[in-house]
Amino acid sequence: MSSPDTEPPPATGADFLAEIRQQPQALRALLEHERDYARVATTARERRATTVRMVGHGSSDNASSYGVYAFGLLPRWTALRDSITLTAYYHAQLDMSGSTVIALSQSGRTPDVIDYLTRARSAGAYTVALTNDISSDLAAEAEEVLPLAAGPERAVAASKTYLNQIAALGLFAAYAAGEGRAFGTGIRETADLLERLLPKLEPHARSVALPFASVGRMFVVGRGIEFATAREIALKLLETCRVAAEPLTATALQHGPVAALDPLFPVWTIASEDETLPAVVEAAERVRAAGATLVASGDAAASLTGAAYSLPVPKPPAPLLSPLLSVVPGQLFAAELARARGLDPDHPVGLSKVTLAR
Amino acid sequence: MSSPDTEPPPATGADFLAEIRQQPQALRALLEHERDYARVATTARERRATTVRMVGHGSSDNASSYGVYAFGLLPRWTALRDSITLTAYYHAQLDMSGSTVIALSQSGRTPDVIDYLTRARSAGAYTVALTNDISSDLAAEAEEVLPLAAGPERAVAASKTYLNQIAALGLFAAYAAGEGRAFGTGIRETADLLERLLPKLEPHARSVALPFASVGRMFVVGRGIEFATAREIALKLLETCRVAAEPLTATALQHGPVAALDPLFPVWTIASEDETLPAVVEAAERVRAAGATLVASGDAAASLTGAAYSLPVPKPPAPLLSPLLSVVPGQLFAAELARARGLDPDHPVGLSKVTLAR
Repeated sequence: MSSPDTEPPPATGADFLAEIRQQPQALRALLEHERDYARVATTARERRATTVRMVGHGSSDNASSYGVYAFGLLPRWTALRDSITLTAYYHAQLDMSGSTVIALSQSGRTPDVIDYLTRARSAGAYTVALTNDISSDLAAEAEEVLPLAAGPERAVAASKTYLNQIAALGLFAAYAAGEGRAFGTGIRETADLLERLLPKLEPHARSVALPFASVGRMFVVGRGIEFATAREIALKLLETCRVAAEPLTATALQHGPVAALDPLFPVWTIASEDETLPAVVEAAERVRAAGATLVASGDAAASLTGAAYSLPVPKPPAPLLSPLLSVVPGQLFAAELARARGLDPDHPVGLSKVTLAR
Repeated sequence: MSSPDTEPPPATGADFLAEIRQQPQALRALLEHERDYARVATTARERRATTVRMVGHGSSDNASSYGVYAFGLLPRWTALRDSITLTAYYHAQLDMSGSTVIALSQSGRTPDVIDYLTRARSAGAYTVALTNDISSDLAAEAEEVLPLAAGPERAVAASKTYLNQIAALGLFAAYAAGEGRAFGTGIRETADLLERLLPKLEPHARSVALPFASVGRMFVVGRGIEFATAREIALKLLETCRVAAEPLTATALQHGPVAALDPLFPVWTIASEDETLPAVVEAAERVRAAGATLVASGDAAASLTGAAYSLPVPKPPAPLLSPLLSVVPGQLFAAELARARGLDPDHPVGLSKVTLAR
């Protein structure tokens, strides 16, 4: 995809920005594998492997926070971000015969995720690799491989990988609930919405990012299905902008961290139109009462009165699709803030694309 | 308990400091209810309610991170920090007939924890309230009440409540595994170790805290059973010292946040003598390579070479008891750092002891 006509390509972060722009087409590429998702979901149901254990690091772990809600709301299965350490380091021998393991790794090369999956398979779990590289070691160890199909991701900071991971978990959960086709259609419609949104959102995110050039710390607040979004935006701010950004649920904010707020502590708040909105609105009022700068985002951003900045997104066809849109203002904000700070999101200091650390 | 002879009582945070000192006796008070823990664990086993769903906010949620390991390592049950939102807001109707719910709330008055427990009970879960107030609404709604027995906690920042919560979860898990008596004895011995440690640790923590008077952000790194410790220390730093402190596992640090490190970004690292130690040592080396100040803590603090400061604790009778000791240097550091900054941990701005926010 091309950059907006009015802007030259950035000196740094060109890959990150290009990959953010590729997200609509990445989502469509995922849907080419819809039949695989349907098949694996049916197998999980037939095997009664209805406890879903998701494992991954970084953005993959953030996406798993979304999976907790997708599996809980659609097939009503219990899904958890499982402890890799418990199985791969402590060798706790849990009975996993009623479990489906979804191992998330862009590269398929994360050592302790592979180790976890191997042990989980021995413990009776139905093991599924969700990866961009279907010929990776992770894919080889798993019973099933679900292609992430996000295409090559060159920037160290993930963008389209994350979006495809949450879409993939939603699709899996929807097929497990017998609602896969409708969900697939919803992803397609959301990809179209995102494609129309991006050209307007880019300059908007740039204008919001500039006043934050000297900010050292932030909270990112999201609840329920948007907690994954809060985690992913906070991680982008940390790794690309060196902002000490912490993700919090609306309620967790009020159980301690609110005491740290002051006018130098901005809070990015994701408000989506669902049952958690009153709690998010209440948290935003606490933020403003503490004198902190409030950035409102999400499809219900307008519900947060008194926000200094607002980066709304359109309403998707179904609430569970909101996180496909609500993370994008945060990605673009991080890309623009990194540029304003002279940092390169394609190559953050000390990181490589494939993390082999255990 | 009395303060060390050489020090006058602090002008602020007197309750917080007094309650940190009361922790050995709080642990002993918990053990007076050992029979209740044995009975409830037996019932959970007999009902085959072996998926443990823990819910709570703030320190209670931090303690739940420990529960994941205690139940995983001792009875080999799957334990998770369950989503309150999924059940209490979205009304997802999961089948909880094979589940034990442990609802953690110091006051027993947290509204959405009560709401969650009520719905979980209707969904077939075996519901247990773990609270300091056995006449609270939470206790009334639950099938079983386990007394936390920490005694009145006046400081808004929790200390002895947290310690008794992790001891209680460990005791429950140990009785579920048929190892309750030995674990109880281990808690008693650890309380004695802590009692001997405190008088030396207090002035030591004070001398380490002073150089951090102007620090705005920190990471707190712990893995496995010490991830709960990392979360709790980070929360103390946030709520009592207004430090933007983020808890990370050793591996999560390397999947992004390491890029934010610089010489102005100190990292508190908890190293305990268990299977995760090599990963923690490796993470600490990355921290030092980035030029960040390293604070080493835990019973294997000496394994972290190049630490600028070290706050070691003794080795407890069993590895699962380590978190009862390793959090205490962080509590004392927070108490002393708050004092150095003129902040009052007994009454952080914007917080009250009982959080009724949803």
